[in-house]
Amino acid sequence: MPLATIEWNGSVEDGKIILIDQTKLPQKLEYIECKTTDEIVDAIKKLKVRGAPALGIAGAYGLVQAIQSSKAEKFDDLWLEINKAAKYIGSSRPTAVNLTWGIERVKRTARNAKDEPIKVIKEIMLTEAHDILEEDKRVCRAIGKAGDEIVPEGARILTHCNAGGLATADYGTALAVMFTAASQGKNIHVFADETRPLLQGARLTAWELLQAEIDVTLICDNTAGVLMNQGKVDLVITGADRIAANGDAANKVGTYSVAVLAKENNIPFYIAAPLSTFDLSTSSGKDIPIEERASEEVTTIGGRRIAPKDIKVYSPAFDVTPAEYIHGIITEKGIITEITTESIQAFFEKNS
Amino acid sequence: MPLATIEWNGSVEDGKIILIDQTKLPQKLEYIECKTTDEIVDAIKKLKVRGAPALGIAGAYGLVQAIQSSKAEKFDDLWLEINKAAKYIGSSRPTAVNLTWGIERVKRTARNAKDEPIKVIKEIMLTEAHDILEEDKRVCRAIGKAGDEIVPEGARILTHCNAGGLATADYGTALAVMFTAASQGKNIHVFADETRPLLQGARLTAWELLQAEIDVTLICDNTAGVLMNQGKVDLVITGADRIAANGDAANKVGTYSVAVLAKENNIPFYIAAPLSTFDLSTSSGKDIPIEERASEEVTTIGGRRIAPKDIKVYSPAFDVTPAEYIHGIITEKGIITEITTESIQAFFEKNS
Repeated sequence: MPLATIEWNGSVEDGKIILIDQTKLPQKLEYIECKTTDEIVDAIKKLKVRGAPALGIAGAYGLVQAIQSSKAEKFDDLWLEINKAAKYIGSSRPTAVNLTWGIERVKRTARNAKDEPIKVIKEIMLTEAHDILEEDKRVCRAIGKAGDEIVPEGARILTHCNAGGLATADYGTALAVMFTAASQGKNIHVFADETRPLLQGARLTAWELLQAEIDVTLICDNTAGVLMNQGKVDLVITGADRIAANGDAANKVGTYSVAVLAKENNIPFYIAAPLSTFDLSTSSGKDIPIEERASEEVTTIGGRRIAPKDIKVYSPAFDVTPAEYIHGIITEKGIITEITTESIQAFFEKNS
Repeated sequence: MPLATIEWNGSVEDGKIILIDQTKLPQKLEYIECKTTDEIVDAIKKLKVRGAPALGIAGAYGLVQAIQSSKAEKFDDLWLEINKAAKYIGSSRPTAVNLTWGIERVKRTARNAKDEPIKVIKEIMLTEAHDILEEDKRVCRAIGKAGDEIVPEGARILTHCNAGGLATADYGTALAVMFTAASQGKNIHVFADETRPLLQGARLTAWELLQAEIDVTLICDNTAGVLMNQGKVDLVITGADRIAANGDAANKVGTYSVAVLAKENNIPFYIAAPLSTFDLSTSSGKDIPIEERASEEVTTIGGRRIAPKDIKVYSPAFDVTPAEYIHGIITEKGIITEITTESIQAFFEKNS
């Protein structure tokens, strides 16, 4: 059973959000307690908690926590506080749609319960946040199961960044497919891109797969191409942070390159993501905002400088893989194999 | 004027090889003295000196140094020592053909002078090594000039690894093209891939371009693709470590990926390399030996561990870019624009 990436601890009016500090892995498995909105926003910005689904949960709990000690006596006053907090927390990372999605779900339950006493509204909000977490666990398992059909015995799978248990409440998205395959006795081998600059592949994916006793090899991001060209990769699976209505998918920077290299080498490229990662209000990848990160993430590692002082850096956190490169999107409701606006729309209609 | 990457200091019988220790850049500009064959081999293996042309010079001086204190009185005895040293030095890095090329040139002059007194043979060998260095300087300048025609005003050029002054005796190969363009008053902008694992782009290319006051932006290797996709790159130029008879080119790992991404985005991909980097005895890239590096280069940075203990790593130092991805090869004799065995053969015949 994977460790709990994120948890609520305490009552509805005095709760803490407990997180694995993912910046400390793999050296240390350390938990942190967020007691204030500033603390959870800081944890999100610094990637102590990360991964689209986990951000959805963090956003949901964050919103509950933001109003837990509210003195509001009327709904309208509480609603102002909720909206202010939602905006503040939601702005901490602009690309991952799940963050806003989690916040909005909790907001919606509050509004639907507006005639209840304030204390009851708070309880309903916390229950919704718990539901998001529990749903995420089920969704992860369902993604793993749905993806099983694309993983043959002996498959050599390449992944980028971390779309594992640490990116979710439980089993991951891309890694869920691998965990499921392995749990069924399939021998698989995983190549983990280290994923510069913050090395989520080297630090988190490698660690999770080792823990699960799955055969894993770490590579530099720039080695994925030659590995594919040598015929050593059978399929690629990554997560996503936001999928537009037409199937264009934002994910950790470098995913686009992996997808192009996979196409060039006739290797199927899959994305594994819950339906909550789709943003049908964004028509294509061009409209997805891409967060830029601080140059220090590239120019220093562990405080050690690895580039000249004053060097300019371009460090987008994400890139967009156009739908045409995506062989299929593995969701909790099955695999979308035709990546067009129409077929995605139809898939949602069928499964809602 | 660039700094001297490598120099001979002293007499033919008591010479030291002076190198910039490239592993210390950009933090420190530090020179080391190699007084023994073990020291130069160690410097090559540890990439204190690196870059195909610079390795040619290091190999040449290394061979002179290896026999400088030889007690041989007959050529046959000296020849045995020369061959033993040539093999030892040549094996220190298997992919870069220039290393062997430099060694073989010096060996050849020794054999051609076999009837001379031993002291004279040593002097002839040292002269040949000096000639290789001086030639390299002229070759770098000629490459820069030859490449000028492909660099329009305002060009945004992406490069991978370091093919600059530090990889040669003087002006570099890929960077020679940029230095030449800039020296003619062209405004150019360079994107430097950081080049994991040893960060030659972040440490060396960024540093050289800053020194030359060329506008440079550092990116993670996995960001090159999205940058091209955003229309921010006009052309790509890299160096090479060995070019096969058919034009397949071995260069720092990641070059293949850059070439594929360039092709996908209709961006011309050029290699800049002296004719000495061609190995016409190797028919295609399949026959180029690829050096694998130690896993610690990936799992640690500056002694700091960035991946779980005992993780398996695959770390080839180079990859091979098939000729079909190469738009042109910029040499000291002009640009080869048709990359086939026949046209390369014809180019050599015309220019030898």
